[in-house]
Amino acid sequence: MLMRIDHVGIACENLDEKIAFYRSVFDVKVVAREINEEQGVEEAMLHVADGEGGGSYIQLLEPLGPDTPVGKFLARRGEGVHHIAYGVSDIVAAMEHIGGEGVRLLDKSPRHGAMGTSIAFLHPKDVGGVLTELVESPPRPS
Amino acid sequence: MLMRIDHVGIACENLDEKIAFYRSVFDVKVVAREINEEQGVEEAMLHVADGEGGGSYIQLLEPLGPDTPVGKFLARRGEGVHHIAYGVSDIVAAMEHIGGEGVRLLDKSPRHGAMGTSIAFLHPKDVGGVLTELVESPPRPS
Repeated sequence: MLMRIDHVGIACENLDEKIAFYRSVFDVKVVAREINEEQGVEEAMLHVADGEGGGSYIQLLEPLGPDTPVGKFLARRGEGVHHIAYGVSDIVAAMEHIGGEGVRLLDKSPRHGAMGTSIAFLHPKDVGGVLTELVESPPRPS
Repeated sequence: MLMRIDHVGIACENLDEKIAFYRSVFDVKVVAREINEEQGVEEAMLHVADGEGGGSYIQLLEPLGPDTPVGKFLARRGEGVHHIAYGVSDIVAAMEHIGGEGVRLLDKSPRHGAMGTSIAFLHPKDVGGVLTELVESPPRPS
């Protein structure tokens, strides 16, 4: 079911500063950057690797305000890992299986993620304290 | 420099229970399990994907006691993501570059990790609150 570690979502106070840090220290480049009003973040995807099932990224997240989920995360825990995302081939089938195992889905149906993906989050209390995201990549251009 | 997200290290209270959970919910299998006295953990590697640079894994960590680093992490923050590990081709060169950028290295030279790897940790305060590990895989059998 899991095809790859799609990305590690990292909450930060200042997106520009953190992008510059990752670029100089780890030599990774931004391949997408966008504001997601629905999730209350400005986010950047830094490319780590490509694989058969899609790419792997570091996702840097700066909250749009203190009352957003990532803003509250920063106030409570400070900068650090916010969530882990795994690539799946069929997100609807994965959600059905995982929900059937008793894990609560924070999204009842997939919603839009970065770079044309479909995403859904699982309840961290049901996944050992890890906010876990499923990602289905868009079909590759043929 | 970064070749892959090698693994996500997740701290847990009970390794057997968490392995069973990940197996049934995410259909991932244990490919290695060992006690690492030096790090004070019993750990299991659950296989997610293979790539050109090596595999990607979920690493589950149960502390050997409350006075170990992972034991203290659990007492302070509860179960959840403990660290992120990136695969590199040359860990000594990566450590030199990263140290030269002003990031403190928790290991002065590489030490032994799971499955024959060489590993080194970076100071989380210098990497935006993320305990970050570098992993160089052993040469593949030819």
